Amino acid sequence: MDKFILHEEPISGNCYKIRLTAALLGIPLERRIYSILKGETRTTEFLQTVSSFGRVPVLQIGDATFLPESNAACFYLAETATAASSMSPPSIALIPQSAMRRAEMLRWMFFEQNQHEVNIATLRFWTHVIGEKNLDPSRRAQIEGKTKAGEQALDCMEDHIAKSECGWFVGDSITLADICLFAYTHIAHDAGFDLARWPSILKWCDRVKQVQGYVAMD
Amino acid sequence: MDKFILHEEPISGNCYKIRLTAALLGIPLERRIYSILKGETRTTEFLQTVSSFGRVPVLQIGDATFLPESNAACFYLAETATAASSMSPPSIALIPQSAMRRAEMLRWMFFEQNQHEVNIATLRFWTHVIGEKNLDPSRRAQIEGKTKAGEQALDCMEDHIAKSECGWFVGDSITLADICLFAYTHIAHDAGFDLARWPSILKWCDRVKQVQGYVAMD
Repeated sequence: MDKFILHEEPISGNCYKIRLTAALLGIPLERRIYSILKGETRTTEFLQTVSSFGRVPVLQIGDATFLPESNAACFYLAETATAASSMSPPSIALIPQSAMRRAEMLRWMFFEQNQHEVNIATLRFWTHVIGEKNLDPSRRAQIEGKTKAGEQALDCMEDHIAKSECGWFVGDSITLADICLFAYTHIAHDAGFDLARWPSILKWCDRVKQVQGYVAMD
Repeated sequence: MDKFILHEEPISGNCYKIRLTAALLGIPLERRIYSILKGETRTTEFLQTVSSFGRVPVLQIGDATFLPESNAACFYLAETATAASSMSPPSIALIPQSAMRRAEMLRWMFFEQNQHEVNIATLRFWTHVIGEKNLDPSRRAQIEGKTKAGEQALDCMEDHIAKSECGWFVGDSITLADICLFAYTHIAHDAGFDLARWPSILKWCDRVKQVQGYVAMD
């Protein structure tokens, strides 16, 4: 079985998704830590050996395969979990069996990257990590729009999870949809969103934290 | 077999992806057209029967299932193509067989939604559809940043496709990665991007147009 190495920055929710997926599946993951603020993902060595795009996370599979994009890495781990897990078989399946449910799971994963992460994660990075006073005018001008769009994304999630019979985004158990959405939602307060406004999301966050094998963000 | 109905707006590249996927797979697709500019995806009827989020595309599967998110809809069509195609079996498989290749395909589909569509499609909508002179100051302030980010996304694609042995984003034949990236790339000039700067992308666009069953955007 191939060894997995996660090239990551611990402040990133995108990196955390992959750690959480591996933890729930019982897949061992070696960690290589880089500081984005110190430019450690832009060094010649990183660009030549890990990813020419200069971004983390990158999931390294064996010696020579490097997979960027957090949600794709989660998908790969969950698809290959039976072979890779230290539990045999893993006690949990994070990808549903039916094509319809798989598509619904992917729907929320694409929503996360297109309407949630680009607003909530970006705002968190700008205001919580870099600091609002250090932002250039072009970024500062985007805070209002991204705040509105982030609220709309949380409204969509609240609407869906409030109506969900089993308390999960797809079907009757946790899937990658929950993991990928959880990553930046449970720390949305860092980006200025008070989750008290979205009570069903708050309850769902607690539900995720109760799943066996759950690991917290660093 | 369930009937597919695509609720769509013909100016949208996200909607076009689904039409192109269905065409390549030989899957019949009924079309229901809405005007975004006239607010036809925000009517009470649309919100109650098609999608409470007020966005297109939505792929309707049978009478009662409505799937938002373009890339998830493409995935569903390709996964269920054998059952749904008028060709039996379909002459083309748009999802690779191996888990590694599937993850690489999803990697580009997530990249598309997270780093390409949010910049290039949004710029195109603002400058080509709404018109720059009609934009509010908050949107106008974002044009420069989105242009830079769109150029970076095209640089990433150029770098990858120039090195690709077979001329496709993943493996040795067209996959959903190519279709999803093609949608807003081949009309990037509408958003102010001159593709002459990215020659390998231009060649790849021509390659996509040569695939049997190809349909153009309206």
